[in-house]
Amino acid sequence: MPKDAAGPLRLLRETNQERVLTVLRTQGVLTRAQLTERTGLSRATLSSIVQDLLAADMLTETAANAGKAGSEGHRGRGRPVSGLTLNPKGGLALGMDLGHRFVQVTIANVAHEIVASGGVTCSERAPWSRRLELALALVSELATRHQLSLAALAGIGVGVVGPVSETGGHRRPSRATRIELVRDGLTERFGVPVYVDNNTRLAALGEAIWGAGAGLDNVLYLRLSYGVGGGLVLGGHLFSGAGGAAGELGHITVDPAGPRCACGGRGCLERYVSVDAILEQCGVRRFDDVLHRLAEGDPAVRTVISTAGTRIGQVVAAACNTVNPETVVIGGELALAGAQLLDPLRQAVRQHTHTEVRQGLRIEPAALGHDDAARGGIALVLRRSPVLAGYPAAPSAPAPVASRDQLPHVPDAQEIS
Amino acid sequence: MPKDAAGPLRLLRETNQERVLTVLRTQGVLTRAQLTERTGLSRATLSSIVQDLLAADMLTETAANAGKAGSEGHRGRGRPVSGLTLNPKGGLALGMDLGHRFVQVTIANVAHEIVASGGVTCSERAPWSRRLELALALVSELATRHQLSLAALAGIGVGVVGPVSETGGHRRPSRATRIELVRDGLTERFGVPVYVDNNTRLAALGEAIWGAGAGLDNVLYLRLSYGVGGGLVLGGHLFSGAGGAAGELGHITVDPAGPRCACGGRGCLERYVSVDAILEQCGVRRFDDVLHRLAEGDPAVRTVISTAGTRIGQVVAAACNTVNPETVVIGGELALAGAQLLDPLRQAVRQHTHTEVRQGLRIEPAALGHDDAARGGIALVLRRSPVLAGYPAAPSAPAPVASRDQLPHVPDAQEIS
Repeated sequence: MPKDAAGPLRLLRETNQERVLTVLRTQGVLTRAQLTERTGLSRATLSSIVQDLLAADMLTETAANAGKAGSEGHRGRGRPVSGLTLNPKGGLALGMDLGHRFVQVTIANVAHEIVASGGVTCSERAPWSRRLELALALVSELATRHQLSLAALAGIGVGVVGPVSETGGHRRPSRATRIELVRDGLTERFGVPVYVDNNTRLAALGEAIWGAGAGLDNVLYLRLSYGVGGGLVLGGHLFSGAGGAAGELGHITVDPAGPRCACGGRGCLERYVSVDAILEQCGVRRFDDVLHRLAEGDPAVRTVISTAGTRIGQVVAAACNTVNPETVVIGGELALAGAQLLDPLRQAVRQHTHTEVRQGLRIEPAALGHDDAARGGIALVLRRSPVLAGYPAAPSAPAPVASRDQLPHVPDAQEIS
Repeated sequence: MPKDAAGPLRLLRETNQERVLTVLRTQGVLTRAQLTERTGLSRATLSSIVQDLLAADMLTETAANAGKAGSEGHRGRGRPVSGLTLNPKGGLALGMDLGHRFVQVTIANVAHEIVASGGVTCSERAPWSRRLELALALVSELATRHQLSLAALAGIGVGVVGPVSETGGHRRPSRATRIELVRDGLTERFGVPVYVDNNTRLAALGEAIWGAGAGLDNVLYLRLSYGVGGGLVLGGHLFSGAGGAAGELGHITVDPAGPRCACGGRGCLERYVSVDAILEQCGVRRFDDVLHRLAEGDPAVRTVISTAGTRIGQVVAAACNTVNPETVVIGGELALAGAQLLDPLRQAVRQHTHTEVRQGLRIEPAALGHDDAARGGIALVLRRSPVLAGYPAAPSAPAPVASRDQLPHVPDAQEIS
């Protein structure tokens, strides 16, 4: 069928181009060698596709590969290897974290460059509608300050407190309503796809893309804060579990005879190592005081932190024996205790994991700050938005946006980053 | 470009056809309604594609849907709903389990019908080459007895003892060599793709397709035998972990101060609930005696089994809090203790899981027998073999095969199923 051949062949070429674009959209900056490996294309095919995409202004060549490639950015005797990214003008992704105590907005371009970021604290008792207002005001302010055209927005990824199922909803009606409120509000305002997920899980994705697990496929993330939760990136994808509750490491039992927990269990890790539990054990009122006394060498506080490390390590070991990750990332306030927490934690993990699970396993403190979940939201957009997928995806702007004066002012919000 | 349009449109239609074929290859028998839901195609598109595929003899209509659809097979007042499968003549998949104490071979067609199955016991000390010989003899014998043409073989899925990484190899050279021995031996003999994985993990996949977790996407499988291991099916796929050791639930710590384990850990679940540990605790020499005394109501044995159930439940709870599965499947000899094991196990899981994790969670005894891992191997072939993928995939036979007289005889092997 020579007459039809042009169609399928063109489609095949477009499929290969799309593969290159998708890998770069997911990973940020890559060398040609890394791109060859991750697309599975031959060097010749890749080279020709890259040439076309550069000519079409869809890719950009960076002088030195300062991105995730790390030391691979320099070949042998120090000649810098150039990296490839999507054209930064190809679109923007917005990440939002509607947390317990703060609201964060971060914006990146498709080349994975963070172009704007800001956050405000809010009351724990603030309703979700208020958190959403704060976020919208931040978006408006950041767009003005950094002269960003929100017309180039490809989507919004939002982190919220509590479980969110695979379909982005929740089986408990009250929670489902809150999620819908956020999604519908943002969809209506910006006219772009909106992805909602649990914010601790998004922090896991953020760390797996930009942080301590950068470039790895299997990352277990644990957040040690007022609550203790976690998230799993498995096979390169955020994993939610059947009901959106995967990664509930704070509710793994440390002592079956221990105190009751709000989750319905008994002797959960969270009861022993949440910030509140640590404050009580140390007999202080602020977490800064814990860190201060730790630095001064207070033996009682050192014991509290070291015991916490051991308990956390036992739970992390159980989770590692279950999913066999490459890296465990430890985030949240408690991680600020550094080696005094991490050393006993690592030791307990070594003691309680199967040889095969322990081999090559790294346990690292989180590398991102307040914007971890917002960055995870950005990653969701870069992976899922149909605005960015599909060929031809010219670096132009789709989607309608609200004018700035529709966004509310927030005179009482406190800026945190 | 009206001249080219035929190409892309035809490709789109072929892509949709391939989607229908892939879903049926993965799931077995489905009603039209289930097929619509799982392909995401419109009813009209699906209907027209199914008609074409039936006409091309690539699909078969079954009188009543006796497959996984279960009660869905009857609509309202009892009129049976017809099911669709791939044409059973479309190819064969061979599953093999090279276990510690036995070798199993099971053959299915692409409609998920088991067409032949057999097993032999072997010595624990037998080298891998001997296990492979036993398996080849079984293949030969089954092909003869059931008059199967191995020319229709689309691939072989093999379960082996010990971890196997995502790429199908292993970082420890001796183990990698054993895996290569099996893969190369079978590839050379049959000229079809060969997939090797850990046999406990393949049992998990078998249970998720044909057994107690049939039709579910997130299944945690635990095998309680001489060793205690497990496997995870997450998001519909077998999950291996970074180093091929995901699901090592037998090495989750029950008591941090407990006895040393061969894995390098301390107080591992396996030390308390392996068949050998249970025999010792019960003071008997054969597992049948444990079951016998249990049935007679021996209080000491009942306590041993109930305590084991509680300990297993605590570990299963930790794994469930990590991955939030829909169903936990309990297999291995110990599962034969039935409710006396499962009741305390279920209670412990309820007590030690987060509310969101516990909700809707089922804990079921395994439904398959000796051929669980071999069936998992079949599932790997049905999912991965390029011989079966790709359109047009006419129900004809590819691939060269060995003549039967090349296969060895095994006069000393004992048949087990």
